[in-house]
Amino acid sequence: MSGPGRATPHASSKATVLDVIRAAGVISRVGLIGATGFTGATISTVVRRLIDEGLVVETGRAESTGGKRRVLLQLNHSARYAVGVHLDHAGNTYVLTNLGGAVVARILRPGVADPAAVVGQVADSVSALVEGVGIERELVLGVGVVSPGAPGADVEGLVGELRRAVGLPVAADNDATAAALGEHWSGGIGGTATSAALCMGTRLGAGLVIGGITYRGNGGDAGEIGHVSVDALGPVCWCGGRGCLEVMAGPAAVVAEAGEAPSLARELKGGSVAADFAAVARAARRGEAAALGLLERSARCVAVAARSLANLMDLEVLVLTGPGFAVAGSVYLPVIREELGRAVVGRGSGGVDVRLSRSASTAPAIGAAALVLQAELVPLTQGLRLPENLAAAEPAALAPGV
Amino acid sequence: MSGPGRATPHASSKATVLDVIRAAGVISRVGLIGATGFTGATISTVVRRLIDEGLVVETGRAESTGGKRRVLLQLNHSARYAVGVHLDHAGNTYVLTNLGGAVVARILRPGVADPAAVVGQVADSVSALVEGVGIERELVLGVGVVSPGAPGADVEGLVGELRRAVGLPVAADNDATAAALGEHWSGGIGGTATSAALCMGTRLGAGLVIGGITYRGNGGDAGEIGHVSVDALGPVCWCGGRGCLEVMAGPAAVVAEAGEAPSLARELKGGSVAADFAAVARAARRGEAAALGLLERSARCVAVAARSLANLMDLEVLVLTGPGFAVAGSVYLPVIREELGRAVVGRGSGGVDVRLSRSASTAPAIGAAALVLQAELVPLTQGLRLPENLAAAEPAALAPGV
Repeated sequence: MSGPGRATPHASSKATVLDVIRAAGVISRVGLIGATGFTGATISTVVRRLIDEGLVVETGRAESTGGKRRVLLQLNHSARYAVGVHLDHAGNTYVLTNLGGAVVARILRPGVADPAAVVGQVADSVSALVEGVGIERELVLGVGVVSPGAPGADVEGLVGELRRAVGLPVAADNDATAAALGEHWSGGIGGTATSAALCMGTRLGAGLVIGGITYRGNGGDAGEIGHVSVDALGPVCWCGGRGCLEVMAGPAAVVAEAGEAPSLARELKGGSVAADFAAVARAARRGEAAALGLLERSARCVAVAARSLANLMDLEVLVLTGPGFAVAGSVYLPVIREELGRAVVGRGSGGVDVRLSRSASTAPAIGAAALVLQAELVPLTQGLRLPENLAAAEPAALAPGV
Repeated sequence: MSGPGRATPHASSKATVLDVIRAAGVISRVGLIGATGFTGATISTVVRRLIDEGLVVETGRAESTGGKRRVLLQLNHSARYAVGVHLDHAGNTYVLTNLGGAVVARILRPGVADPAAVVGQVADSVSALVEGVGIERELVLGVGVVSPGAPGADVEGLVGELRRAVGLPVAADNDATAAALGEHWSGGIGGTATSAALCMGTRLGAGLVIGGITYRGNGGDAGEIGHVSVDALGPVCWCGGRGCLEVMAGPAAVVAEAGEAPSLARELKGGSVAADFAAVARAARRGEAAALGLLERSARCVAVAARSLANLMDLEVLVLTGPGFAVAGSVYLPVIREELGRAVVGRGSGGVDVRLSRSASTAPAIGAAALVLQAELVPLTQGLRLPENLAAAEPAALAPGV
């Protein structure tokens, strides 16, 4: 009874139809009537407008089912683009995606600490992506920027500066939320699934997606799995709580423990938590017992917190993503799968599908681009919030022709 | 950008307008245009239909703001009713609520284990409520039934039998989810708030409400806070996990520990977990140190799990409700408040507002009635699911005149 099927023709009808076409891949006008509940006249009008704007193209005819063969529609993937930026101390990832969320170009740049240098690097990289692919800048809907921190006051200033420097709408979010959205767009998670992405980069966070919409909570801080306690009497975390996952088993905790293990300390360069964590993961892959032991202990704590998340949210899918799982996912995946396979309460569901992302290192950047695409493609009637700073961008640039 | 304001005129326009009127209390047609985004013509048509159906009444005029004084509209609270049933081993609570969710009659009955006896008791009680208040049975939209178990296959059979015995649509859910909805309807939690109700009865569960809609997850099992681990190395729970809140600190754990304390064992009658838990709470209120110690230890574990929930969901409001908190809330409230005040990560929000319900013992039953009212009043476009078994009831009976 939920989802776009019940939305109705109005300002959001274009977005609803676009999102149904995106999710379906190819679909006929009759299929759109069935999927949206709109009248034939409405579908006819909206589709004509989408074709006129170049967002949708006709792509042949369906097999005959007895009557006239139906014209099939699909997104015009090269009609619009978005840039996604994942800022991390360990390195910055830039992607240019098309309207369907597929990556058409990617740039890796070193991490920079100075905000002015960030603005300069982003502006240069956006230009390099657009010119490298040879598309017109007018086709870029905007830039999504994500980082390990949750959105807050310090981010707003950066967003404003980026908007001026780049000349495009800018959306910001935390990397875990974006990674979850990126998995939803690029990973084939169904439109109505309740899914979470555990994202390990510099921090350990979770992004939650409910029916295709990122869930952000009251103040934009949902998914703080790093501050789920796995030991009520454990060590005190900087947040004031005891036994938080971050202090027990996060990347920084793993790196700190590695620094005290004689066989591992020499692997660490001290450049960034993410780089040192990757060094521990490489040592584990080479079969070094101390490294493997550290990661397995971390994995058991992460698994317990993931079970708490699964029991609270009744998840269908849990994706392990982000640079940390890109290098150490093979250790974490079986431990988390075992815990969630054995001890999740949900009876209505068939258990939680735990997966390692196929694009773990770029999922946050893809999700950053999806933040921008979603504002164009997903109806705003579904009751969950888009990032507020995206709403501050000029609507004309975000949704041309509405 | 979310909520009813972006919904649009179609099959759900009546429900949208009704929900806005319910949430506003009183509102003018011009106010409805602003709140819904519908055109004046649509509002005019929908309001006329609602008045014709008797669901809405005109209730005077607003203060003049210079022009013509606007006619104010409000729900006709006595136009429809719903029955809410909270089945619990410790006793069954029946409420009859009006269209606004206010309780107009209440009956308490003993708990019964035999399903046939449950059906008979529910049928008798519904008749007793309707006849006691002297309303026509046709005005009752349906019966909501909630119990400590999550909805599942075993509940479906009961729902079918109840529907035949009572002759009304029947909705079923777990008591924690219903309690959260009941708090939302009766407790003045704002329409866009992300709130959770911790519900303690025979079990300890959480119900989640996002923007006025109960969140159920993939299989209807969301909110299983009893299986959030507070000790990764703790004792094994029946679910297979370690250190689950239920096994560490739930009502049954408190009662079991009380049974081993010489000063408390004599208080326990062994009739039901909820009754014995209430006996421990009474002993604590009398100042018995052993009882108080048990409850405080439970409260510390509950607080740690509540912090995990708050960090994952980024909650605005947490309400302690259900029969367990009705008797022991004064012990739990300060401990949970302290933990959530000290150690929640959310920076975008102003902290979590932790409250003890004003109707803790009846909130699950009120929520059960709200399940039925919500199907009438809340648009189904908002992307979160209503209980599927309610959808199976005849739509004509649920939404007369649509």
